[in-house]
Amino acid sequence: MFYYLDIIGTAAFAASGALAAMRKRLDFFGIFIIACVTAVGGGTLRDILLKVDIAWMRDMNYMYASIVATIFTMMFYRTVKTNSRTLAILDSIGLGVFTIAGIEKGIAGDFVPAICIALGTMSACFGGVIRDMLSNEIPIIFHKEIYATACIIGGVVYFVLWHFDFTHQVYTFAAAMTVVSVRLLSLHFDWQLPNIYGNK
Amino acid sequence: MFYYLDIIGTAAFAASGALAAMRKRLDFFGIFIIACVTAVGGGTLRDILLKVDIAWMRDMNYMYASIVATIFTMMFYRTVKTNSRTLAILDSIGLGVFTIAGIEKGIAGDFVPAICIALGTMSACFGGVIRDMLSNEIPIIFHKEIYATACIIGGVVYFVLWHFDFTHQVYTFAAAMTVVSVRLLSLHFDWQLPNIYGNK
Amino acid sequence: MFYYLDIIGTAAFAASGALAAMRKRLDFFGIFIIACVTAVGGGTLRDILLKVDIAWMRDMNYMYASIVATIFTMMFYRTVKTNSRTLAILDSIGLGVFTIAGIEKGIAGDFVPAICIALGTMSACFGGVIRDMLSNEIPIIFHKEIYATACIIGGVVYFVLWHFDFTHQVYTFAAAMTVVSVRLLSLHFDWQLPNIYGNK
Repeated sequence: MFYYLDIIGTAAFAASGALAAMRKRLDFFGIFIIACVTAVGGGTLRDILLKVDIAWMRDMNYMYASIVATIFTMMFYRTVKTNSRTLAILDSIGLGVFTIAGIEKGIAGDFVPAICIALGTMSACFGGVIRDMLSNEIPIIFHKEIYATACIIGGVVYFVLWHFDFTHQVYTFAAAMTVVSVRLLSLHFDWQLPNIYGNK
Repeated sequence: MFYYLDIIGTAAFAASGALAAMRKRLDFFGIFIIACVTAVGGGTLRDILLKVDIAWMRDMNYMYASIVATIFTMMFYRTVKTNSRTLAILDSIGLGVFTIAGIEKGIAGDFVPAICIALGTMSACFGGVIRDMLSNEIPIIFHKEIYATACIIGGVVYFVLWHFDFTHQVYTFAAAMTVVSVRLLSLHFDWQLPNIYGNK
Repeated sequence: MFYYLDIIGTAAFAASGALAAMRKRLDFFGIFIIACVTAVGGGTLRDILLKVDIAWMRDMNYMYASIVATIFTMMFYRTVKTNSRTLAILDSIGLGVFTIAGIEKGIAGDFVPAICIALGTMSACFGGVIRDMLSNEIPIIFHKEIYATACIIGGVVYFVLWHFDFTHQVYTFAAAMTVVSVRLLSLHFDWQLPNIYGNK
């Protein structure tokens, strides 16, 4: 089941990349490539840092999911845009699943918890960072929304519950749900990180 | 002979990088580094994804070609600029050769055709993408010109001819010529990808 | 002792990243991530190209140094900003140490001197390049300051002294001091690379 969620997350990330590219009025190929980079970029960075095989190069399902999501987004641009709530939910699921996937790959590579959480956060967020860099904007996660913070909190939940001897199923699920909830609640209530600049 | 074309393609890419940097009026070192990144960036990404040795780190000829092309471009800035047609032809040769080189490295790594074509396209286009990102612009291949599309078409030709049992020489040459022709024809006739946004 | 300088250099780079992020008024997380990327980005690229373990993923001291430096910079923003001289000195030490570290890792990987110097320069400068790209600016090292040039000169000193049979301690120290001096002198006297564009 986790695998299917991973694919769904990939598709949701591809759709968000396609939307960003269409807002910049890029051409067909530009939309397609930004969608794919957003979808698989985080996992690629994670796999490069871990020196393991790049996931999407061995398992075509990631590519298929990205391509289908991109074409779907292009065909139903208006529908997708007005259903931003649905997209946000799918996107959060992707965020949660990618965070856990990154953490577990880090554990498999024998890294300490802090590095695993960093890998999970990168897996989940880096795609969006490249998307914004390719569209020539300061990455949104750096200055507007609670995004990476959700991944880090989820990662901490993962290791705390693990430490207290919960089963794998429990702490995996709880951590993923934490990421999803923090992200969705922050969107709903328009939370922002505390302003550190004072009132100037 | 393929190897020499690879070096020529590298030099052409370095020249196009140097031109872009000079248009932004960067300093000597900035021009030099952007030229090198444009020339070897695509191959570097390809080799990282394939987990093989980075080509230019083991074979200095790539570096020499980039350096000579950069110095040449700086010395004959006006000449190079006004001979954009010659540069475009060299650049297309680079595009074709890099696409094939990426595809064949992918085949050597035992990847499926779609991934090989993706690798070939990345090898050929990624240098230009970093060039534009370093110059703080939306990469040109995303919104203006037929560039990656030429690589993808060439890649498809490669595998179709292979499938029909042509010799290695034939399908390699045909695929490279396809990339070059599509690119040059698209430049000459100012082809663009179909507009997907309607008349708004 | 070299190891401690490496940590100090990392901290100085993190502080410079945090300053750049605060100037763009990014949020807490944005500052933190840009600081870390600036601090470890160059070493990460170096280790990926060399296909060795990423240093900061195995040795948490790099992370600790970056985090402490970031928090310090946020707490004492004004103090840090007005002590730009101190920061510049620390930053130059980082530049020198990173250059040598990159060169020596390259030698360990059996690469020719020119490639080792390129690796050293990348180790030292790439963090700053990503910092500027993430802040949506043309990297400063490309058009304003003597930065990479200092690393290259230091690298040449390294190999020349090595060639003339000085001890390891001597040529390492001399090369690092060369980088630091060229950088600090260029800042003090406002040196720039010669203008290659004439008076237009």
